[in-house]
Amino acid sequence: MTVQRIHNFNAGPAALPLSVLEKIQASFLDFNGSGMSITEISHRSSYFDAVINDAIDRAKTLLKLDDNYHVLFVQGGASLQFAMIPMNFLGQNDTADYINTGTWSTKAIKEAQMQKKSIQVPASSEDNNFSYIPQNIQCNPAARYVHITSNNTIKGTQFATFPQTNGVPLVADMSSDIFSRPLPMEKFGLIYAGAQKNLGPSGTCMVIIRKDFMETANDNLPSMLSYATYAAKNSMYNTPPCFGIYTIGLVLQWIQQTFGSLEKMAEHNTKKAGILYDLIDTSDFYQATAQKDSRSLMNVTFRLPSEELEKQFVAGAAQKGLGGLKGHRSVGGCRASIYNAATMENMAALTEFMASFEKENG
Amino acid sequence: MTVQRIHNFNAGPAALPLSVLEKIQASFLDFNGSGMSITEISHRSSYFDAVINDAIDRAKTLLKLDDNYHVLFVQGGASLQFAMIPMNFLGQNDTADYINTGTWSTKAIKEAQMQKKSIQVPASSEDNNFSYIPQNIQCNPAARYVHITSNNTIKGTQFATFPQTNGVPLVADMSSDIFSRPLPMEKFGLIYAGAQKNLGPSGTCMVIIRKDFMETANDNLPSMLSYATYAAKNSMYNTPPCFGIYTIGLVLQWIQQTFGSLEKMAEHNTKKAGILYDLIDTSDFYQATAQKDSRSLMNVTFRLPSEELEKQFVAGAAQKGLGGLKGHRSVGGCRASIYNAATMENMAALTEFMASFEKENG
Repeated sequence: MTVQRIHNFNAGPAALPLSVLEKIQASFLDFNGSGMSITEISHRSSYFDAVINDAIDRAKTLLKLDDNYHVLFVQGGASLQFAMIPMNFLGQNDTADYINTGTWSTKAIKEAQMQKKSIQVPASSEDNNFSYIPQNIQCNPAARYVHITSNNTIKGTQFATFPQTNGVPLVADMSSDIFSRPLPMEKFGLIYAGAQKNLGPSGTCMVIIRKDFMETANDNLPSMLSYATYAAKNSMYNTPPCFGIYTIGLVLQWIQQTFGSLEKMAEHNTKKAGILYDLIDTSDFYQATAQKDSRSLMNVTFRLPSEELEKQFVAGAAQKGLGGLKGHRSVGGCRASIYNAATMENMAALTEFMASFEKENG
Repeated sequence: MTVQRIHNFNAGPAALPLSVLEKIQASFLDFNGSGMSITEISHRSSYFDAVINDAIDRAKTLLKLDDNYHVLFVQGGASLQFAMIPMNFLGQNDTADYINTGTWSTKAIKEAQMQKKSIQVPASSEDNNFSYIPQNIQCNPAARYVHITSNNTIKGTQFATFPQTNGVPLVADMSSDIFSRPLPMEKFGLIYAGAQKNLGPSGTCMVIIRKDFMETANDNLPSMLSYATYAAKNSMYNTPPCFGIYTIGLVLQWIQQTFGSLEKMAEHNTKKAGILYDLIDTSDFYQATAQKDSRSLMNVTFRLPSEELEKQFVAGAAQKGLGGLKGHRSVGGCRASIYNAATMENMAALTEFMASFEKENG
């Protein structure tokens, strides 16, 4: 049976590498000779131990992590992390800095404030509709951490470099750009990422946490809301999201086998986004919405001359097998999400369509 | 390619219906003509709306729920529910009753106490190694809820009928027997179930909550820890565990198409467990560990004359393609988990092996 696949530019859940999907499909009734589906094997079995440890090892290799970091798998998405981070790290006399670069940062701030935690916002790009990443941020040297959203899916901006914090650990929501580029890990105390953009299916959140930072966490928390629980039990205090962790391992293996390193992955992503921004910048028809120095390599947001044309653009693209190009419902416009799994073929199909749509309607 | 499947008696993650796995496999690269995998479609799409609403409708139909109940999908397993329930329902002046029937009840109690909530334990079977379900329990009429674990996977016991609470809502962990039998829903304020035993892959927890009970919950909680958030957004405040919800819908469809109703499902489960208990009861070699009136239809726990024979039994069974028969690591012995998806063929293979093992070693 021939399968018709679309060019998938969804913001998340997003496209996964076809070879990963094919591998899951092929072994879905019999994982690794176990006679069981990956969804049916015990998390206390040697089969699953190999799965979870493989995913962790690949994450550590790609990010060049030493043994000072735990790689954990937590459920509840980035949204539960918004609550867990202040819960774990802000005691009565503590304060943290939150840099506000859009919808997700705003939600992270709200979940800390709802818990009556003391937080400050030393920088925000709200004054210009979150179209840029603030520079030269003065962080509080007494803050427990500085929280950032490394890539902003809705507004199409991304931290190209990370703020100077004078040793205060960065805590970063990297749901939409984890493993898209190498990271200066010495700056980070904690990185979290919902899997459904660059890593795997929804329902698993990867948390990378520096051990010395973790050891400063509050210890009077419900088990499932304490990072220490996950670290002590290799993320298996209770049954983990096995299928998600398995898929994440396969995606990381795909990065290693296809690109070799995050440096090469970043080159590929820069090239992909460049193709699209070049087309937009040389056109009077398409307008990029993010400021040039703040543009995301993962989510390219743009407008057409009218909302009517944007509607036609999205509908026309769908007819040609190009999906997910509608902007987030809160901002409108158009958006192409081109995470790690987006291929050069996807980019060629998109730019070809954009050029012809401009020709017909420009 | 011929796939070799084992007879899977895992306690959880556990066997799923083969027809469900085959359906997932067949459409894994192209869900419903979308040109995307179920793992790649947006949770904000009409494709996924149909998936989640179908799963909810089937759950409501099977349990004969009216519009007074929400069916929600939460992440974090039953263990996060242990924390969320007291967080949502116990204010400073409230108290709840917890009936202690084993490891999972004990953990639920611990997670409430850790939050300094006031709880009482009106009945416990700890005095006899949790081998029975307490009867004639006197619950506190002023309690906010009475918490039970309806089926105890480790000790192999199950509530055959539910406690009389004089109108106080029952809150039940049904992770291991949900949809295995009809339920007197009028007794319950909240039912929760980690999916990985009777429902689907790990990583999704179904929560069935009565609206008037939910409306009494605390409203100053982090969004992801408040049932109201899930109810207000049809479990899509953030990205839900899409693959898990999809699989749950298929499993519920399988119950409807194969058995038609939970009454018929219960008949099937009673018959399956009966075959095994009959063999054990007529043997001097195998000994059931749960008291007769408290036996689980889902997890049949038994001992052999020696630990050495138990080891040989588990190893010999594995060689014959019968997996997951080792008892929980905390109690030893043997256990056959025979959830909804266990077939008569599985039962025949198991009883045949048990009879021949007894013959050789008895």
